[in-house]
Amino acid sequence: MQSRAWGAHAGDKPLEPLDIVRREPGPRDVQVEIRYCGVCHSDLHTVRSEWGGTLYPCVPGHEIVGEVTAVGAQVTRFAVGENVGIGCLVGSCRECASCKQGLEQYCEQGFIGTYNGPTADPPGHTLGGYSQRIVVDESFILKIHHPKEQLAAVAPLLCAGITTYSPLRHWKAGPGKKVGIVGIGGLGHMGIKLADAMGAHVVAFTTSESKRQDAHKLGADEVVISRDENAMDAHAGTFDFILDTVAASHDLNAFTKLLKRDGTLCLVGVPEHPHPSPNIAVLIFGRKSIAGSLIGGIPETQEMLDFCAKHGIVSDIEMIPIQQIDAAYDRMLKSDVKYRFVIDSTSLAGTG
Amino acid sequence: MQSRAWGAHAGDKPLEPLDIVRREPGPRDVQVEIRYCGVCHSDLHTVRSEWGGTLYPCVPGHEIVGEVTAVGAQVTRFAVGENVGIGCLVGSCRECASCKQGLEQYCEQGFIGTYNGPTADPPGHTLGGYSQRIVVDESFILKIHHPKEQLAAVAPLLCAGITTYSPLRHWKAGPGKKVGIVGIGGLGHMGIKLADAMGAHVVAFTTSESKRQDAHKLGADEVVISRDENAMDAHAGTFDFILDTVAASHDLNAFTKLLKRDGTLCLVGVPEHPHPSPNIAVLIFGRKSIAGSLIGGIPETQEMLDFCAKHGIVSDIEMIPIQQIDAAYDRMLKSDVKYRFVIDSTSLAGTG
Repeated sequence: MQSRAWGAHAGDKPLEPLDIVRREPGPRDVQVEIRYCGVCHSDLHTVRSEWGGTLYPCVPGHEIVGEVTAVGAQVTRFAVGENVGIGCLVGSCRECASCKQGLEQYCEQGFIGTYNGPTADPPGHTLGGYSQRIVVDESFILKIHHPKEQLAAVAPLLCAGITTYSPLRHWKAGPGKKVGIVGIGGLGHMGIKLADAMGAHVVAFTTSESKRQDAHKLGADEVVISRDENAMDAHAGTFDFILDTVAASHDLNAFTKLLKRDGTLCLVGVPEHPHPSPNIAVLIFGRKSIAGSLIGGIPETQEMLDFCAKHGIVSDIEMIPIQQIDAAYDRMLKSDVKYRFVIDSTSLAGTG
Repeated sequence: MQSRAWGAHAGDKPLEPLDIVRREPGPRDVQVEIRYCGVCHSDLHTVRSEWGGTLYPCVPGHEIVGEVTAVGAQVTRFAVGENVGIGCLVGSCRECASCKQGLEQYCEQGFIGTYNGPTADPPGHTLGGYSQRIVVDESFILKIHHPKEQLAAVAPLLCAGITTYSPLRHWKAGPGKKVGIVGIGGLGHMGIKLADAMGAHVVAFTTSESKRQDAHKLGADEVVISRDENAMDAHAGTFDFILDTVAASHDLNAFTKLLKRDGTLCLVGVPEHPHPSPNIAVLIFGRKSIAGSLIGGIPETQEMLDFCAKHGIVSDIEMIPIQQIDAAYDRMLKSDVKYRFVIDSTSLAGTG
């Protein structure tokens, strides 16, 4: 089955229209007509091979929302016409301790990414959501209960949403907890909304005074300009948990100092250049931790989608046709988007 | 009350005999005739003002074992003639959340150290265990149930023992858990003994092939030479917890890579020069943590002493008279001690 897609043939080439082949649905497969696909920073890193190891042609996209158009004979959980989501994972070993606990993102054999992952399908690596349709095993398909008019804004929940939801849940954000969210971008704006909905006291950290009002609107109880040392000092030793969504190299001590005893600073972005080495004394003198967290497993992604549907949470998005993807990447690099670009997949039928 | 002590008048001066004054026991005080005092690396750092902020004259020593010689009128828990211990803390605010939970080491006002801490007693800062006697509030005195002939080897439990016991307990070392101990010195040799007694599978990491047999004797189930990359790789992703007792700057990634998902690398030493910045991707791809831990509170120190008495655990020591303290410091810096120097306090009555 043919599908129009947009991808790149090399790290230094722009994205362009491609015709790709999707497998015919097997007995446990679900075929999805893609309606919307969010634009994640990882898409750009991968398509430009900034992390190395990109296989070409590369079709990015792992924040996928669409409609089921066919199901295999043994598929029981999905029916034609249903709205569904596909996130960062389309496979895993299903046998290891992590997979058995529904933590497929930590699969000991390595999970199969929605793009650039190993597959028997042509061309030998997975191709993502910048395409008209996709075929995925039903075990990696999510149900969406949001109203139809919100579907575009649901797409970023599949990566930006779960990447923030999972650590907030793991470190028990909720009533009585003071939670910090560092960075107000694609991830951070979801972190604020989610931590607020979980009932935590939410403090947003940003370097931009201009984001103060927006952060409050997103649900922050307090906003701290992280360059303001006095404002930072006023929060010393008071946070249960801080979720740091900033991947660029920065001073972690500014945030570990703000943690209470037994508090955790959790990072979700891999810096291109290392952060300055963190001050170990700050950790020792408060039994504090610096941790990392990676997206989320399938059960927790479904839990997140259900939580968001119940609380009326979606991403704040700017819709684009695929023809504007290069401009969108440029603006994303300048943080010039509130807060996530989403591709209107009908544009894929148009010319390049 | 006069007491002979050994201390230094400046960071660049050797230790020498001093006569110091101890307060008369108040209603809640316990007066202790010191029998033994362990020699901790912190003693050397402080007396030489390597961390800055040392107040002189400086009398170090916070691994104190002795006999009660007087008690205040309101003291109920101790009686003259009893063997007792005094560790790193002789006071705290007793009001903050940490103090109320018995975690006085994390006192929000700052705990009062056994030496170099604030006090109304002359000379205005606390003076430690390189002395004949000491007066301490009963709330900071520990009971010792080890047999009398083990008292010298009990002394290092008061710092080296609790510094390793507390994180091993906090991160739940025990049956079914694979626990690493990095470094086989004053702290590490206690970590091996304690983790073994807790029932964990214990792997000792050392840079010295010469310590292999000793590590097994201490209780290690396996010993890994940390310079041997193949030996390290064989343990990738298998540890629940690694306690890193090495303060010198070193590569933390070598150990975070060995952690399972959700594993923790806990540091208990503050490096003089920062460790190379840790690889955040290793943390993110396994929800791993790098944490710190500081000594232990009074209730947990008592628990540790009781645990050690029950399991017949003491430190491996080399006894010295105070007159050999400079040589002992030199040897300690070369890791030339198995595994802790302990001062025989009767030597304080001798000449300098």
